[in-house]
Amino acid sequence: MNRIEVIPVPGLPEVKPGEDLGALISSALQRNRLRLKDGDVVVVKQKVVSKAEGRLVSLADVVPSARAKRLAKSQGKDERLVELILRESVRVVRAGHGVIITETRHGFVCANSGVDQSNVGKGVASLLPEDSDRSARGIRAALEKGSGAEVAVVVTDTFGRPWRLGQTDVAIGCSGIDPFVRYASKRDRFGYRLRVTQPAVVDEIAGAAELALGKLGGIPVAVVRGASYSRAETGVAPIVMPRERDLFR
Amino acid sequence: MNRIEVIPVPGLPEVKPGEDLGALISSALQRNRLRLKDGDVVVVKQKVVSKAEGRLVSLADVVPSARAKRLAKSQGKDERLVELILRESVRVVRAGHGVIITETRHGFVCANSGVDQSNVGKGVASLLPEDSDRSARGIRAALEKGSGAEVAVVVTDTFGRPWRLGQTDVAIGCSGIDPFVRYASKRDRFGYRLRVTQPAVVDEIAGAAELALGKLGGIPVAVVRGASYSRAETGVAPIVMPRERDLFR
Repeated sequence: MNRIEVIPVPGLPEVKPGEDLGALISSALQRNRLRLKDGDVVVVKQKVVSKAEGRLVSLADVVPSARAKRLAKSQGKDERLVELILRESVRVVRAGHGVIITETRHGFVCANSGVDQSNVGKGVASLLPEDSDRSARGIRAALEKGSGAEVAVVVTDTFGRPWRLGQTDVAIGCSGIDPFVRYASKRDRFGYRLRVTQPAVVDEIAGAAELALGKLGGIPVAVVRGASYSRAETGVAPIVMPRERDLFR
Repeated sequence: MNRIEVIPVPGLPEVKPGEDLGALISSALQRNRLRLKDGDVVVVKQKVVSKAEGRLVSLADVVPSARAKRLAKSQGKDERLVELILRESVRVVRAGHGVIITETRHGFVCANSGVDQSNVGKGVASLLPEDSDRSARGIRAALEKGSGAEVAVVVTDTFGRPWRLGQTDVAIGCSGIDPFVRYASKRDRFGYRLRVTQPAVVDEIAGAAELALGKLGGIPVAVVRGASYSRAETGVAPIVMPRERDLFR
Protein backbone atom coordinates (compact mmCIF):
# COMPACT_ATOMS: atom_id res chain seq x y z
CA MET A 1 0.00 0.00 0.00
CA ASN A 2 1.22 3.43 -0.95
CA ARG A 3 -0.03 6.95 -0.69
CA ILE A 4 -0.16 8.30 -4.25
CA GLU A 5 0.12 11.91 -5.31
CA VAL A 6 -0.73 13.29 -8.74
CA ILE A 7 0.85 16.69 -9.31
CA PRO A 8 -0.02 18.76 -12.40
CA VAL A 9 2.90 20.58 -13.99
CA PRO A 10 1.68 23.92 -15.35
CA GLY A 11 3.69 26.40 -17.37
CA LEU A 12 4.71 24.41 -20.43
CA PRO A 13 4.79 26.83 -23.40
CA GLU A 14 2.78 26.12 -26.57
CA VAL A 15 4.94 23.38 -28.13
CA LYS A 16 6.03 23.67 -31.76
CA PRO A 17 7.22 21.00 -34.20
CA GLY A 18 10.86 20.10 -33.73
CA GLU A 19 11.13 21.36 -30.17
CA ASP A 20 12.80 19.27 -27.48
CA LEU A 21 9.85 18.25 -25.33
CA GLY A 22 11.99 16.62 -22.64
CA ALA A 23 13.95 19.85 -22.15
CA LEU A 24 10.74 21.91 -22.08
CA ILE A 25 9.25 19.63 -19.40
CA SER A 26 12.50 19.80 -17.40
CA SER A 27 12.30 23.59 -17.44
CA ALA A 28 8.63 23.59 -16.45
CA LEU A 29 9.42 21.28 -13.50
CA GLN A 30 12.17 23.66 -12.40
CA ARG A 31 9.93 26.70 -12.67
CA ASN A 32 7.40 24.84 -10.47
CA ARG A 33 10.22 23.98 -8.03
CA LEU A 34 9.19 20.37 -8.48
CA ARG A 35 12.21 18.12 -8.03
CA LEU A 36 11.75 14.64 -9.49
CA LYS A 37 12.39 11.74 -7.11
CA ASP A 38 13.36 8.14 -7.86
CA GLY A 39 10.24 6.23 -8.86
CA ASP A 40 8.23 9.24 -10.07
CA VAL A 41 6.22 8.66 -13.21
CA VAL A 42 5.96 11.65 -15.52
CA VAL A 43 2.77 11.45 -17.57
CA VAL A 44 2.67 13.35 -20.86
CA LYS A 45 -0.46 13.68 -22.99
CA GLN A 46 -0.25 12.51 -26.57
CA LYS A 47 -1.25 15.83 -28.09
CA VAL A 48 1.83 17.69 -26.92
CA VAL A 49 4.06 14.81 -28.02
CA SER A 50 2.44 14.85 -31.46
CA LYS A 51 2.98 18.60 -31.67
CA ALA A 52 6.67 18.34 -30.78
CA GLU A 53 7.09 15.57 -33.34
CA GLY A 54 5.29 17.48 -36.09
CA ARG A 55 2.42 14.99 -36.31
CA LEU A 56 -0.05 17.69 -37.35
CA VAL A 57 -1.83 17.81 -40.68
CA SER A 58 -3.71 20.69 -42.24
CA LEU A 59 -7.02 19.26 -43.47
CA ALA A 60 -6.86 21.58 -46.50
CA ASP A 61 -3.89 19.55 -47.75
CA VAL A 62 -5.63 16.16 -47.54
CA VAL A 63 -7.10 14.60 -50.68
CA PRO A 64 -9.66 11.97 -49.70
CA SER A 65 -9.79 8.65 -51.49
CA ALA A 66 -13.03 7.16 -52.82
CA ARG A 67 -13.06 4.78 -49.83
CA ALA A 68 -12.68 7.66 -47.38
CA LYS A 69 -15.50 9.54 -49.12
CA ARG A 70 -17.85 6.56 -48.84
CA LEU A 71 -17.05 5.94 -45.17
CA ALA A 72 -17.26 9.65 -44.35
CA LYS A 73 -20.69 9.84 -45.93
CA SER A 74 -22.01 6.77 -44.12
CA GLN A 75 -20.76 8.04 -40.73
CA GLY A 76 -21.46 11.76 -41.20
CA LYS A 77 -17.81 12.79 -40.91
CA ASP A 78 -15.41 15.12 -42.75
CA GLU A 79 -13.99 13.09 -45.65
CA ARG A 80 -10.49 14.54 -45.21
CA LEU A 81 -10.52 13.49 -41.57
CA VAL A 82 -11.66 10.00 -42.57
CA GLU A 83 -8.82 9.84 -45.11
CA LEU A 84 -6.34 10.46 -42.27
CA ILE A 85 -8.10 7.89 -40.07
CA LEU A 86 -7.76 5.27 -42.81
CA ARG A 87 -4.11 6.14 -43.53
CA GLU A 88 -3.28 5.71 -39.83
CA SER A 89 -5.03 2.34 -39.58
CA VAL A 90 -4.35 -1.23 -40.62
CA ARG A 91 -8.07 -2.07 -40.61
CA VAL A 92 -11.50 -0.78 -39.69
CA VAL A 93 -12.79 -2.85 -36.75
CA ARG A 94 -16.32 -1.37 -36.66
CA ALA A 95 -18.13 1.64 -38.07
CA GLY A 96 -21.55 2.75 -36.93
CA HIS A 97 -23.50 5.47 -35.14
CA GLY A 98 -20.97 8.03 -36.46
CA VAL A 99 -18.06 6.20 -34.81
CA ILE A 100 -15.16 4.62 -36.68
CA ILE A 101 -13.17 2.11 -34.62
CA THR A 102 -9.87 1.12 -36.19
CA GLU A 103 -6.77 -0.84 -35.39
CA THR A 104 -3.77 1.47 -35.66
CA ARG A 105 -0.37 0.50 -36.98
CA HIS A 106 0.74 0.19 -33.35
CA GLY A 107 -1.98 -2.41 -32.66
CA PHE A 108 -4.22 -0.10 -30.60
CA VAL A 109 -7.95 -0.43 -31.20
CA CYS A 110 -9.55 2.98 -30.75
CA ALA A 111 -11.86 5.56 -32.29
CA ASN A 112 -10.61 7.37 -35.39
CA SER A 113 -7.09 5.87 -35.24
CA GLY A 114 -6.41 8.46 -32.56
CA VAL A 115 -6.71 11.27 -35.13
CA ASP A 116 -8.34 14.28 -33.54
CA GLN A 117 -8.97 17.97 -33.77
CA SER A 118 -9.08 19.22 -30.19
CA ASN A 119 -6.39 21.55 -28.83
CA VAL A 120 -4.53 21.89 -32.14
CA GLY A 121 -6.25 24.84 -33.82
CA LYS A 122 -8.78 25.33 -36.59
CA GLY A 123 -8.52 23.12 -39.68
CA VAL A 124 -5.74 21.00 -38.18
CA ALA A 125 -5.77 17.36 -37.06
CA SER A 126 -3.22 15.61 -34.89
CA LEU A 127 -2.01 12.07 -35.52
CA LEU A 128 -0.64 9.72 -32.86
CA PRO A 129 3.15 9.72 -32.52
CA GLU A 130 4.79 7.21 -34.86
CA ASP A 131 6.25 5.35 -31.88
CA SER A 132 5.15 6.62 -28.47
CA ASP A 133 7.56 4.27 -26.69
CA ARG A 134 10.42 6.00 -28.49
CA SER A 135 8.90 9.38 -27.57
CA ALA A 136 8.72 8.28 -23.91
CA ARG A 137 12.35 7.09 -24.00
CA GLY A 138 13.52 10.43 -25.32
CA ILE A 139 11.62 12.39 -22.69
CA ARG A 140 12.84 10.08 -19.93
CA ALA A 141 16.47 10.52 -20.98
CA ALA A 142 16.11 14.31 -20.80
CA LEU A 143 14.34 14.21 -17.43
CA GLU A 144 16.84 11.81 -15.86
CA LYS A 145 19.73 13.92 -17.15
CA GLY A 146 18.08 17.06 -15.78
CA SER A 147 17.16 15.64 -12.38
CA GLY A 148 19.56 12.82 -11.57
CA ALA A 149 16.52 10.78 -10.50
CA GLU A 150 15.50 7.43 -11.97
CA VAL A 151 12.01 8.03 -13.35
CA ALA A 152 9.49 6.54 -15.78
CA VAL A 153 7.53 8.27 -18.54
CA VAL A 154 4.05 7.37 -19.78
CA VAL A 155 2.50 8.92 -22.90
CA THR A 156 -1.29 8.87 -22.73
CA ASP A 157 -4.32 9.28 -24.95
CA THR A 158 -8.06 9.25 -24.34
CA PHE A 159 -9.80 6.07 -25.52
CA GLY A 160 -13.40 4.92 -25.39
CA ARG A 161 -14.28 1.39 -24.35
CA PRO A 162 -16.82 -1.13 -25.61
CA TRP A 163 -19.80 -1.70 -23.29
CA ARG A 164 -19.06 1.34 -21.13
CA LEU A 165 -19.85 4.92 -22.10
CA GLY A 166 -17.32 7.65 -21.51
CA GLN A 167 -13.58 7.56 -21.99
CA THR A 168 -10.52 7.00 -19.86
CA ASP A 169 -6.93 7.95 -20.50
CA VAL A 170 -4.67 5.00 -21.25
CA ALA A 171 -1.00 4.52 -22.03
CA ILE A 172 0.08 4.54 -25.68
CA GLY A 173 3.79 4.62 -24.87
CA CYS A 174 6.06 4.19 -21.87
CA SER A 175 9.66 3.98 -20.81
CA GLY A 176 11.30 2.86 -17.58
CA ILE A 177 8.21 1.00 -16.37
CA ASP A 178 6.77 -2.49 -16.78
CA PRO A 179 3.20 -1.89 -18.07
CA PHE A 180 1.91 -4.58 -15.69
CA VAL A 181 2.13 -5.40 -12.02
CA ARG A 182 2.52 -9.15 -12.17
CA TYR A 183 0.71 -11.08 -9.45
CA ALA A 184 0.51 -14.39 -11.30
CA SER A 185 1.43 -17.21 -8.90
CA LYS A 186 1.33 -14.94 -5.86
CA ARG A 187 -1.04 -15.98 -3.09
CA ASP A 188 -3.73 -13.96 -1.32
CA ARG A 189 -4.12 -13.90 2.48
CA PHE A 190 -6.08 -17.17 2.33
CA GLY A 191 -3.45 -19.01 0.32
CA TYR A 192 -5.44 -18.81 -2.93
CA ARG A 193 -3.10 -18.55 -5.89
CA LEU A 194 -3.84 -15.60 -8.19
CA ARG A 195 -3.69 -16.81 -11.75
CA VAL A 196 -4.30 -14.09 -14.28
CA THR A 197 -4.16 -10.97 -12.15
CA GLN A 198 -1.98 -8.47 -13.91
CA PRO A 199 -3.10 -4.89 -13.43
CA ALA A 200 -2.22 -2.60 -16.31
CA VAL A 201 -0.51 -0.12 -14.04
CA VAL A 202 0.43 2.23 -16.90
CA ASP A 203 -3.26 2.60 -17.78
CA GLU A 204 -4.23 3.27 -14.16
CA ILE A 205 -1.45 5.87 -13.96
CA ALA A 206 -2.75 7.43 -17.19
CA GLY A 207 -6.26 7.69 -15.74
CA ALA A 208 -5.00 9.10 -12.44
CA ALA A 209 -3.13 11.84 -14.33
CA GLU A 210 -6.25 12.67 -16.34
CA LEU A 211 -8.14 13.23 -13.08
CA ALA A 212 -5.62 15.94 -12.25
CA LEU A 213 -5.32 17.51 -15.71
CA GLY A 214 -8.75 17.49 -17.37
CA LYS A 215 -9.38 18.18 -21.03
CA LEU A 216 -9.54 21.90 -21.54
CA GLY A 217 -5.94 22.12 -22.64
CA GLY A 218 -3.30 24.08 -20.95
CA ILE A 219 -1.63 21.42 -18.85
CA PRO A 220 -0.47 18.23 -20.57
CA VAL A 221 2.01 16.99 -17.95
CA ALA A 222 1.62 15.52 -14.47
CA VAL A 223 3.90 13.72 -12.04
CA VAL A 224 2.48 10.57 -10.40
CA ARG A 225 4.39 9.89 -7.20
CA GLY A 226 4.21 6.82 -4.98
CA ALA A 227 2.96 4.15 -7.43
CA SER A 228 4.50 0.68 -7.16
CA TYR A 229 5.88 -0.63 -10.42
CA SER A 230 8.82 -2.55 -11.79
CA ARG A 231 11.38 -1.03 -14.07
CA ALA A 232 11.41 -2.44 -17.59
CA GLU A 233 12.08 -1.23 -21.06
CA THR A 234 9.47 -3.14 -23.04
CA GLY A 235 7.33 -0.12 -23.88
CA VAL A 236 3.58 -0.69 -24.09
CA ALA A 237 3.85 -3.44 -26.70
CA PRO A 238 3.05 -6.20 -24.13
CA ILE A 239 -0.36 -4.56 -23.55
CA VAL A 240 -1.48 -5.03 -27.14
CA MET A 241 -3.49 -8.25 -27.08
CA PRO A 242 -2.09 -10.82 -29.49
CA ARG A 243 -4.50 -11.53 -32.32
CA GLU A 244 -4.78 -15.22 -31.38
CA ARG A 245 -5.94 -14.44 -27.84
CA ASP A 246 -8.40 -11.76 -28.84
CA LEU A 247 -12.07 -12.69 -28.49
CA PHE A 248 -13.28 -9.38 -29.99
CA ARG A 249 -11.50 -8.99 -33.36
CA MET B 1 -6.15 21.34 -12.60
CA ASN B 2 -5.98 19.75 -9.18
CA ARG B 3 -3.41 18.01 -7.12
CA ILE B 4 -4.84 14.56 -6.33
CA GLU B 5 -4.04 12.40 -3.35
CA VAL B 6 -4.89 8.74 -2.95
CA ILE B 7 -4.75 7.64 0.67
CA PRO B 8 -5.09 3.95 1.61
CA VAL B 9 -7.16 3.27 4.74
CA PRO B 10 -5.65 0.31 6.60
CA GLY B 11 -7.09 -1.38 9.65
CA LEU B 12 -10.49 -2.58 8.48
CA PRO B 13 -11.24 -5.87 10.28
CA GLU B 14 -12.12 -9.04 8.34
CA VAL B 15 -15.71 -8.22 7.33
CA LYS B 16 -18.49 -10.76 7.99
CA PRO B 17 -21.94 -11.11 6.43
CA GLY B 18 -24.47 -8.72 7.90
CA GLU B 19 -21.95 -6.25 9.28
CA ASP B 20 -22.39 -2.52 8.77
CA LEU B 21 -19.61 -1.73 6.32
CA GLY B 22 -20.16 2.04 6.46
CA ALA B 23 -19.71 2.03 10.24
CA LEU B 24 -16.61 -0.18 9.98
CA ILE B 25 -15.04 2.20 7.42
CA SER B 26 -15.92 5.19 9.62
CA SER B 27 -14.11 3.56 12.54
CA ALA B 28 -11.08 2.70 10.41
CA LEU B 29 -10.89 6.32 9.21
CA GLN B 30 -10.97 7.52 12.81
CA ARG B 31 -8.28 5.07 13.88
CA ASN B 32 -6.13 6.43 11.05
CA ARG B 33 -6.91 10.00 12.17
CA LEU B 34 -8.13 10.61 8.64
CA ARG B 35 -10.88 13.22 8.69
CA LEU B 36 -13.02 13.23 5.53
CA LYS B 37 -13.33 16.58 3.73
CA ASP B 38 -16.04 17.83 1.40
CA GLY B 39 -15.43 16.38 -2.06
CA ASP B 40 -13.47 13.33 -0.92
CA VAL B 41 -14.26 10.13 -2.78
CA VAL B 42 -14.13 6.97 -0.68
CA VAL B 43 -13.32 3.98 -2.86
CA VAL B 44 -14.38 0.55 -1.61
CA LYS B 45 -13.43 -2.69 -3.33
CA GLN B 46 -16.23 -5.01 -4.36
CA LYS B 47 -14.98 -7.98 -2.39
CA VAL B 48 -15.48 -6.40 1.01
CA VAL B 49 -18.94 -5.13 -0.04
CA SER B 50 -19.90 -8.62 -1.18
CA LYS B 51 -18.70 -10.05 2.13
CA ALA B 52 -20.72 -7.55 4.20
CA GLU B 53 -23.77 -8.32 2.06
CA GLY B 54 -23.36 -12.08 2.36
CA ARG B 55 -22.72 -12.57 -1.37
CA LEU B 56 -20.50 -15.58 -0.74
CA VAL B 57 -21.24 -19.10 -1.92
CA SER B 58 -19.65 -22.33 -0.84
CA LEU B 59 -18.82 -24.25 -4.02
CA ALA B 60 -19.70 -27.52 -2.25
CA ASP B 61 -23.34 -26.37 -2.18
CA VAL B 62 -23.57 -25.65 -5.91
CA VAL B 63 -25.19 -28.21 -8.22
CA PRO B 64 -24.07 -27.53 -11.78
CA SER B 65 -26.57 -27.70 -14.64
CA ALA B 66 -25.89 -29.63 -17.84
CA ARG B 67 -25.17 -26.32 -19.58
CA ALA B 68 -22.65 -25.33 -16.90
CA LYS B 69 -20.97 -28.72 -17.20
CA ARG B 70 -20.58 -28.38 -20.97
CA LEU B 71 -19.19 -24.84 -20.76
CA ALA B 72 -16.89 -25.75 -17.86
CA LYS B 73 -15.47 -28.64 -19.86
CA SER B 74 -14.90 -26.56 -23.00
CA GLN B 75 -13.13 -23.81 -21.03
CA GLY B 76 -11.27 -25.98 -18.51
CA LYS B 77 -13.04 -24.50 -15.48
CA ASP B 78 -14.69 -25.81 -12.29
CA GLU B 79 -18.29 -26.69 -13.24
CA ARG B 80 -19.70 -25.33 -9.97
CA LEU B 81 -17.97 -22.01 -10.60
CA VAL B 82 -19.38 -21.94 -14.12
CA GLU B 83 -22.85 -22.64 -12.72
CA LEU B 84 -22.52 -19.49 -10.57
CA ILE B 85 -21.18 -17.51 -13.55
CA LEU B 86 -24.24 -18.51 -15.60
CA ARG B 87 -26.70 -17.77 -12.77
CA GLU B 88 -25.22 -14.27 -12.40
CA SER B 89 -25.44 -13.53 -16.12
CA VAL B 90 -28.11 -12.64 -18.63
CA ARG B 91 -26.01 -13.98 -21.52
CA VAL B 92 -22.62 -15.29 -22.48
CA VAL B 93 -20.94 -12.71 -24.73
CA ARG B 94 -17.88 -14.81 -25.65
CA ALA B 95 -16.17 -17.95 -24.41
CA GLY B 96 -12.72 -19.01 -25.50
CA HIS B 97 -9.13 -19.54 -24.37
CA GLY B 98 -10.44 -20.48 -20.91
CA VAL B 99 -12.20 -17.12 -20.53
CA ILE B 100 -15.96 -16.69 -20.17
CA ILE B 101 -17.17 -13.14 -20.88
CA THR B 102 -20.74 -12.51 -19.79
CA GLU B 103 -23.21 -9.70 -19.44
CA THR B 104 -24.32 -9.47 -15.83
CA ARG B 105 -27.80 -8.60 -14.66
CA HIS B 106 -26.50 -5.08 -14.03
CA GLY B 107 -25.44 -4.73 -17.69
CA PHE B 108 -21.70 -5.02 -17.06
CA VAL B 109 -19.73 -7.04 -19.58
CA CYS B 110 -16.87 -8.76 -17.79
CA ALA B 111 -15.09 -12.05 -17.19
CA ASN B 112 -16.96 -14.68 -15.17
CA SER B 113 -19.90 -12.38 -14.27
CA GLY B 114 -17.56 -10.96 -11.63
CA VAL B 115 -17.64 -14.27 -9.72
CA ASP B 116 -14.25 -14.92 -8.20
CA GLN B 117 -12.31 -16.86 -5.62
CA SER B 118 -9.53 -14.54 -4.48
CA ASN B 119 -9.44 -13.16 -0.93
CA VAL B 120 -12.50 -15.12 0.25
CA GLY B 121 -11.04 -18.40 1.49
CA LYS B 122 -10.81 -21.95 0.20
CA GLY B 123 -13.84 -23.43 -1.59
CA VAL B 124 -15.73 -20.13 -1.54
CA ALA B 125 -16.66 -17.80 -4.39
CA SER B 126 -17.87 -14.22 -4.14
CA LEU B 127 -20.63 -12.78 -6.29
CA LEU B 128 -21.00 -9.10 -7.20
CA PRO B 129 -23.31 -7.12 -4.92
CA GLU B 130 -26.93 -7.25 -6.11
CA ASP B 131 -26.95 -3.47 -6.52
CA SER B 132 -23.61 -1.75 -5.96
CA ASP B 133 -25.19 1.71 -6.30
CA ARG B 134 -27.38 0.87 -3.32
CA SER B 135 -24.31 -0.42 -1.47
CA ALA B 136 -22.49 2.85 -2.23
CA ARG B 137 -25.48 4.90 -1.02
CA GLY B 138 -25.55 3.05 2.27
CA ILE B 139 -21.84 3.51 2.86
CA ARG B 140 -22.03 7.18 1.90
CA ALA B 141 -24.87 7.82 4.36
CA ALA B 142 -22.83 6.28 7.18
CA LEU B 143 -19.67 8.22 6.25
CA GLU B 144 -21.48 11.55 5.93
CA LYS B 145 -23.21 11.00 9.24
CA GLY B 146 -19.90 10.09 10.86
CA SER B 147 -17.87 12.96 9.38
CA GLY B 148 -20.25 15.80 8.61
CA ALA B 149 -18.51 16.09 5.23
CA GLU B 150 -20.23 15.80 1.85
CA VAL B 151 -18.46 12.89 0.16
CA ALA B 152 -18.91 10.39 -2.66
CA VAL B 153 -18.49 6.62 -2.63
CA VAL B 154 -17.33 4.42 -5.51
CA VAL B 155 -17.48 0.61 -5.37
CA THR B 156 -14.89 -0.96 -7.67
CA ASP B 157 -14.03 -4.25 -9.29
CA THR B 158 -11.19 -5.45 -11.50
CA PHE B 159 -12.18 -5.91 -15.16
CA GLY B 160 -10.22 -6.97 -18.21
CA ARG B 161 -10.62 -5.15 -21.49
CA PRO B 162 -10.81 -6.29 -25.09
CA TRP B 163 -7.71 -5.56 -27.18
CA ARG B 164 -5.54 -4.70 -24.21
CA LEU B 165 -3.98 -7.24 -21.87
CA GLY B 166 -4.08 -6.73 -18.13
CA GLN B 167 -6.89 -5.39 -16.01
CA THR B 168 -7.88 -2.07 -14.50
CA ASP B 169 -10.23 -1.35 -11.63
CA VAL B 170 -13.51 0.25 -12.70
CA ALA B 171 -16.62 1.47 -10.92
CA ILE B 172 -19.51 -0.97 -10.48
CA GLY B 173 -21.44 1.32 -8.14
CA CYS B 174 -21.35 4.91 -6.98
CA SER B 175 -23.21 7.47 -4.92
CA GLY B 176 -22.86 11.23 -4.64
CA ILE B 177 -20.93 11.55 -7.91
CA ASP B 178 -21.78 11.94 -11.59
CA PRO B 179 -19.92 9.07 -13.31
CA PHE B 180 -18.86 11.45 -16.08
CA VAL B 181 -17.18 14.81 -16.38
CA ARG B 182 -19.23 16.36 -19.16
CA TYR B 183 -17.26 18.49 -21.61
CA ALA B 184 -19.73 18.22 -24.50
CA SER B 185 -20.19 21.66 -26.05
CA LYS B 186 -17.29 23.15 -24.11
CA ARG B 187 -14.53 24.71 -26.21
CA ASP B 188 -10.78 24.14 -26.09
CA ARG B 189 -8.23 26.97 -26.04
CA PHE B 190 -8.48 27.27 -29.83
CA GLY B 191 -12.27 27.57 -29.84
CA TYR B 192 -12.79 23.98 -31.08
CA ARG B 193 -16.00 22.57 -29.66
CA LEU B 194 -15.54 19.24 -27.88
CA ARG B 195 -18.31 16.92 -28.96
CA VAL B 196 -18.17 13.55 -27.31
CA THR B 197 -15.58 14.09 -24.61
CA GLN B 198 -16.97 12.68 -21.41
CA PRO B 199 -14.32 11.13 -19.18
CA ALA B 200 -15.60 8.31 -17.00
CA VAL B 201 -14.25 9.92 -13.86
CA VAL B 202 -15.53 7.13 -11.60
CA ASP B 203 -13.45 4.61 -13.57
CA GLU B 204 -10.34 6.80 -13.38
CA ILE B 205 -10.89 7.18 -9.65
CA ALA B 206 -11.26 3.39 -9.35
CA GLY B 207 -7.95 2.87 -11.16
CA ALA B 208 -6.17 5.52 -9.08
CA ALA B 209 -7.30 3.76 -5.89
CA GLU B 210 -6.07 0.42 -7.21
CA LEU B 211 -2.60 1.95 -7.69
CA ALA B 212 -2.55 2.66 -3.96
CA LEU B 213 -4.12 -0.59 -2.75
CA GLY B 214 -2.86 -3.45 -4.92
CA LYS B 215 -4.31 -6.93 -4.96
CA LEU B 216 -2.83 -8.88 -2.10
CA GLY B 217 -5.79 -8.24 0.15
CA GLY B 218 -5.68 -6.48 3.39
CA ILE B 219 -6.69 -2.98 2.39
CA PRO B 220 -9.92 -2.57 0.44
CA VAL B 221 -10.56 1.15 1.08
CA ALA B 222 -8.88 4.33 -0.13
CA VAL B 223 -9.74 8.01 -0.06
CA VAL B 224 -9.24 9.93 -3.31
CA ARG B 225 -8.89 13.62 -2.52
CA GLY B 226 -8.84 16.53 -4.96
CA ALA B 227 -10.67 15.07 -7.98
CA SER B 228 -13.10 17.36 -9.82
CA TYR B 229 -16.55 15.92 -10.24
CA SER B 230 -20.19 16.89 -10.10
CA ARG B 231 -22.56 15.62 -7.49
CA ALA B 232 -25.33 13.38 -8.81
CA GLU B 233 -27.31 10.42 -7.65
CA THR B 234 -27.61 8.41 -10.86
CA GLY B 235 -25.34 5.59 -9.77
CA VAL B 236 -23.23 3.95 -12.49
CA ALA B 237 -26.22 3.07 -14.68
CA PRO B 238 -25.40 5.85 -17.21
CA ILE B 239 -22.05 4.15 -17.90
CA VAL B 240 -23.66 0.95 -19.15
CA MET B 241 -23.75 1.37 -22.92
CA PRO B 242 -27.27 1.09 -24.28
CA ARG B 243 -27.68 -1.99 -26.46
CA GLU B 244 -28.61 0.09 -29.51
CA ARG B 245 -25.36 2.12 -29.37
CA ASP B 246 -23.14 -0.85 -28.75
CA LEU B 247 -20.90 -1.87 -31.67
CA PHE B 248 -19.53 -4.92 -29.85
CA ARG B 249 -22.53 -6.97 -28.68
